[in-house]
Amino acid sequence: MLSFENDYSRAAHPAILDTLARINDNLYPGYGSDEICASAKEKIRAACGRPDADVWFMVGGTQTNQVVIDAITPSYAGVVTVESGHPNVHEAGAIEYSGHKVIALPHHDGRMDADELDDYCATFYADGNHEHMVFPGCVYVSIATEYGTMYSKAELERLAEVAHKYDMPFFVDGARLGYGLTSTGCDVTLPELADICDVFYIGGTKVGAMFGEAVVFTKRNTPRHFLTIVKQHGALLAKGFLLGVQFDTLFTDDLYFRIARNANKQADRIRGALREKGYTLTFDAPTNQIFATLDQPTIERLERNVRLGFMEKADDTHTVMRICTSWATTDEETDALIALL
Amino acid sequence: MLSFENDYSRAAHPAILDTLARINDNLYPGYGSDEICASAKEKIRAACGRPDADVWFMVGGTQTNQVVIDAITPSYAGVVTVESGHPNVHEAGAIEYSGHKVIALPHHDGRMDADELDDYCATFYADGNHEHMVFPGCVYVSIATEYGTMYSKAELERLAEVAHKYDMPFFVDGARLGYGLTSTGCDVTLPELADICDVFYIGGTKVGAMFGEAVVFTKRNTPRHFLTIVKQHGALLAKGFLLGVQFDTLFTDDLYFRIARNANKQADRIRGALREKGYTLTFDAPTNQIFATLDQPTIERLERNVRLGFMEKADDTHTVMRICTSWATTDEETDALIALL
Amino acid sequence: MLSFENDYSRAAHPAILDTLARINDNLYPGYGSDEICASAKEKIRAACGRPDADVWFMVGGTQTNQVVIDAITPSYAGVVTVESGHPNVHEAGAIEYSGHKVIALPHHDGRMDADELDDYCATFYADGNHEHMVFPGCVYVSIATEYGTMYSKAELERLAEVAHKYDMPFFVDGARLGYGLTSTGCDVTLPELADICDVFYIGGTKVGAMFGEAVVFTKRNTPRHFLTIVKQHGALLAKGFLLGVQFDTLFTDDLYFRIARNANKQADRIRGALREKGYTLTFDAPTNQIFATLDQPTIERLERNVRLGFMEKADDTHTVMRICTSWATTDEETDALIALL
Amino acid sequence: MLSFENDYSRAAHPAILDTLARINDNLYPGYGSDEICASAKEKIRAACGRPDADVWFMVGGTQTNQVVIDAITPSYAGVVTVESGHPNVHEAGAIEYSGHKVIALPHHDGRMDADELDDYCATFYADGNHEHMVFPGCVYVSIATEYGTMYSKAELERLAEVAHKYDMPFFVDGARLGYGLTSTGCDVTLPELADICDVFYIGGTKVGAMFGEAVVFTKRNTPRHFLTIVKQHGALLAKGFLLGVQFDTLFTDDLYFRIARNANKQADRIRGALREKGYTLTFDAPTNQIFATLDQPTIERLERNVRLGFMEKADDTHTVMRICTSWATTDEETDALIALL
Repeated sequence: MLSFENDYSRAAHPAILDTLARINDNLYPGYGSDEICASAKEKIRAACGRPDADVWFMVGGTQTNQVVIDAITPSYAGVVTVESGHPNVHEAGAIEYSGHKVIALPHHDGRMDADELDDYCATFYADGNHEHMVFPGCVYVSIATEYGTMYSKAELERLAEVAHKYDMPFFVDGARLGYGLTSTGCDVTLPELADICDVFYIGGTKVGAMFGEAVVFTKRNTPRHFLTIVKQHGALLAKGFLLGVQFDTLFTDDLYFRIARNANKQADRIRGALREKGYTLTFDAPTNQIFATLDQPTIERLERNVRLGFMEKADDTHTVMRICTSWATTDEETDALIALL
Repeated sequence: MLSFENDYSRAAHPAILDTLARINDNLYPGYGSDEICASAKEKIRAACGRPDADVWFMVGGTQTNQVVIDAITPSYAGVVTVESGHPNVHEAGAIEYSGHKVIALPHHDGRMDADELDDYCATFYADGNHEHMVFPGCVYVSIATEYGTMYSKAELERLAEVAHKYDMPFFVDGARLGYGLTSTGCDVTLPELADICDVFYIGGTKVGAMFGEAVVFTKRNTPRHFLTIVKQHGALLAKGFLLGVQFDTLFTDDLYFRIARNANKQADRIRGALREKGYTLTFDAPTNQIFATLDQPTIERLERNVRLGFMEKADDTHTVMRICTSWATTDEETDALIALL
Repeated sequence: MLSFENDYSRAAHPAILDTLARINDNLYPGYGSDEICASAKEKIRAACGRPDADVWFMVGGTQTNQVVIDAITPSYAGVVTVESGHPNVHEAGAIEYSGHKVIALPHHDGRMDADELDDYCATFYADGNHEHMVFPGCVYVSIATEYGTMYSKAELERLAEVAHKYDMPFFVDGARLGYGLTSTGCDVTLPELADICDVFYIGGTKVGAMFGEAVVFTKRNTPRHFLTIVKQHGALLAKGFLLGVQFDTLFTDDLYFRIARNANKQADRIRGALREKGYTLTFDAPTNQIFATLDQPTIERLERNVRLGFMEKADDTHTVMRICTSWATTDEETDALIALL
Repeated sequence: MLSFENDYSRAAHPAILDTLARINDNLYPGYGSDEICASAKEKIRAACGRPDADVWFMVGGTQTNQVVIDAITPSYAGVVTVESGHPNVHEAGAIEYSGHKVIALPHHDGRMDADELDDYCATFYADGNHEHMVFPGCVYVSIATEYGTMYSKAELERLAEVAHKYDMPFFVDGARLGYGLTSTGCDVTLPELADICDVFYIGGTKVGAMFGEAVVFTKRNTPRHFLTIVKQHGALLAKGFLLGVQFDTLFTDDLYFRIARNANKQADRIRGALREKGYTLTFDAPTNQIFATLDQPTIERLERNVRLGFMEKADDTHTVMRICTSWATTDEETDALIALL
């Protein structure tokens, strides 16, 4: 059975398992205070072009969003995201559990509009009752978005500008950062992103690692006693060196971006075939997630041979389905899918 | 200076201050375990026609919403309200602070639509990913709504039915219950309301008391160790007998509803005058809150002589303003306002 | 039936009810933004000798402890108190509910020892694992303590010094501040206290008010957006002017301290009688709370005519009982109690 | 450099890395809904002798403690543990962050005494003010304890009995369960433990896995919507199958207990040597953690060649140090350490 269900269905890039096997006789101190973590952090700093950035490793995406947002958002404030944003929809209330409201702006194919953000904040501060309301406390967007779309560099700069205008850190969820930054038409680089935002993370779970997200505080702005905050949220991995191993491997010889690029290449081929065969693409997205609005018979026909992801009902007879490639998708798998379309 | 700014700008109905003066030499045990509280609860049970209801007193509305919602909503769930609902907008994130998401449905002049509630829940449970989302855990509406509008008995019954269909308690915020239940056209009585919903409160702060909200769990359904939960939220008043004094007075000789009726009578007169003089009423609301969409010169003219409430910007040149009567509004004050229109 | 059960069993000092009656026709804006609150704050600043202090009003003690501690303690930190401290024992977990650990040091007749505080912190920071532990984030003591005892000025200065040494604000719960500062042997004044600590409150609930605690941030150190934090905790009173009325009255003509002094005078007389008659005083305390270790027959005999407070079992045959005077205790009541001893 | 610093300093048992390599071309659905997790759960059920137990996988110990305790403890209640308990000392306030107080009883070489638990609860419920206090809501102990000591079967049964007497679930942290159950003198088996307690976990992180803890709800008593609760705490691993892979391997051919036994064997040898050479063992503990009270010169001498763990200062000249063996400790490493003593 073919599967394009998601990008976290295989254990890890073989290079990671190789490294793991190679270091398995070594003994490391706990909680990330080891030399492999140090090396991985150094490589990430170099890749970001920010020798003074702080790098922290966590295990998963929802966890990272919860910890970072809780750490950078004042207690009286919420996180501003879009309605389709992961923390607003698919994190089971992890943000509210930590005490913060998710303030949801409209989305545009998954993207936040900087002018709408500006309007929201201006209206908020102009409201005579705003002290009885939840302050906008930080801005969250994701690269790529939930719908696989991307921001341009100008859009990110403008979002950061508005965020800073209202004294909010600008946080970029990069669970699929690799796929975003290597997508066709992307005009923002990793160093530029690091320059634009205050904190972001480099997703490992969906881009070749077994698990792991590398959080980068870009401007010596790590919240005080962040390690304790991570621990308090149950998010500190005892064998932190396992995170080091994975990111050290991924940031050696540009592996992270090389394998990310493969996912986009396969997705581009599938998008081409879909267009050619007259399918309806739901969004104009350049990354590894393809959303197609399909009728029921088509879905049933396809699902006899390939696992797809369910996104949402479009109308009574159509459903938005997700075709998701990954770092591991092979030409053969893509060929097989295209043949089925 | 005339004021129609809100319904909590005077200390209390004189009868309450009288009772207070009368009992001021008495000594009472703490935390509501006194005989006046017992008497007040008994009178409220009688007024509700539910001899087995549980009555609890708290100090303020946001506090009551926070404590009740937190107590009746499972940890993995949120409270369903409308976008304009008080917990969603004007409680500074008190619900999220207690760990729950506010799930906001569209509002219709402040009201929740039962079919939309049904649709929301049906879609939620049909979603293959719903275990990664916040469950709808209780339903919150207010009587009257934030826009002064009312529910019919049939609408409330239907909301309760849908809530129960999805295993959610139905909670009615009655901060302005008196004004709602005595408004022109209202077809629901206090005993009927007690029958329909699982928990509601009878607002004192805005209806003649200095402060105080009487929470009624209608069906022997008080959450376990509720007193401890109230204390844990910082909401247990040491001199609980002060709450007893106020509600005992308000529920003697129907005082609560008699004074509530006055507010609506004055509001009806003002509404009549506004219509007569060609003003635009923003909502078709029968209670003590009147919303009018006014242009800037009119606002400026009025505000030279009367304090009004700001609601929201309508457009570049118009603002929705609130004219709020209360239990204490006199015929003379209303005459004076009408003369200014 | 005589009652020495507690100091919150009567509604309020008559002067407060008088003021209330006098202002009951006035209209005030909401949430404490009124002129009486302004006047009360000004008087409190004057009494504290700190013209630049920030004064905030809340309703009750547990609420105030929860809001202030949550607002001044970093998210990764806890509040240091003594084992007998109110937040550790009798607040139903209100502090933990807001996310903070209560770090409990041993108590000495209810008092914290500054050297033990210093040792605790020194040991904490010397522990190689301290980043995995809860940081000491603020210091909480109460005046008077739970056992009615007092701190000397030197002790308070030393506690503040140690707190500041470890970057912790020093917070004094003054639910019974009046009784503490007017007790025999007390060598600290209100201005001195304001100078020593970072934030404290002047308890009204137990010292003549119906309810109310006046929080004083002594050094322009109010946490940012504190009003929103108060609201978020459900602690913002709609009719804030009621708090203003009470504190304005209490801080006119030194009423607050005059009536507090009465409680201590009555307590001193009772203590004298107890000693004379050979009773065992559990603590050497100078304030309005007297703790006596009594055998069961004595308790039963006394309780036929007077209500006392239960503190704790001392051993199989003895119980620590509390005799509590208040601002309202009369010479006649005290005479009657002494006659019963 | 020799290391006996802890039992989580090597990646994983080779058999786990082998399995991982073998399944690395397979595609699995997310969040633990895969066949390997199903197989691992089945094997754990079998090992527990409870075909109807519910098994859940989480990543780390503090995380598991936080999620389980929060899920089984009522909102108005706390978790009862001993002063030395991990959640009380070394989890950075993760329990309080989730809203619950940690109620700490005295420990006896790390163990909770059932009679003291009974006394605590009896005193609590007898206290007239107990509704103002934090209810004891669940009981937490760990196997082995923080000091490497063990409970007898009778002690565990008695703790469970007392817990149930006061309506509390009995929760056993098994981060080092393997080492506990295979220690010399242990008289409790895995099925017996499953019978005695309501929920426990089988620690993988410290017993051969890269990471992972297998939570067992023993009596069809999984809290409602537990998966959502796990997700809400940021504790749901996207690639859940990685947890399945590890526990499936560990519970094949009794690998888990076989490798655990090795740690105890090595520890027994070291303990023998320490005793023989006149060292002071701090606790009489039979598991893989050895605590010795050493003077500074000895520590300095040893640490030139071997990494040990710091536990706590014993007095001015002595320190309690931890020597920790693991599933991976070799005879040669043990020989080398003994030679150094």
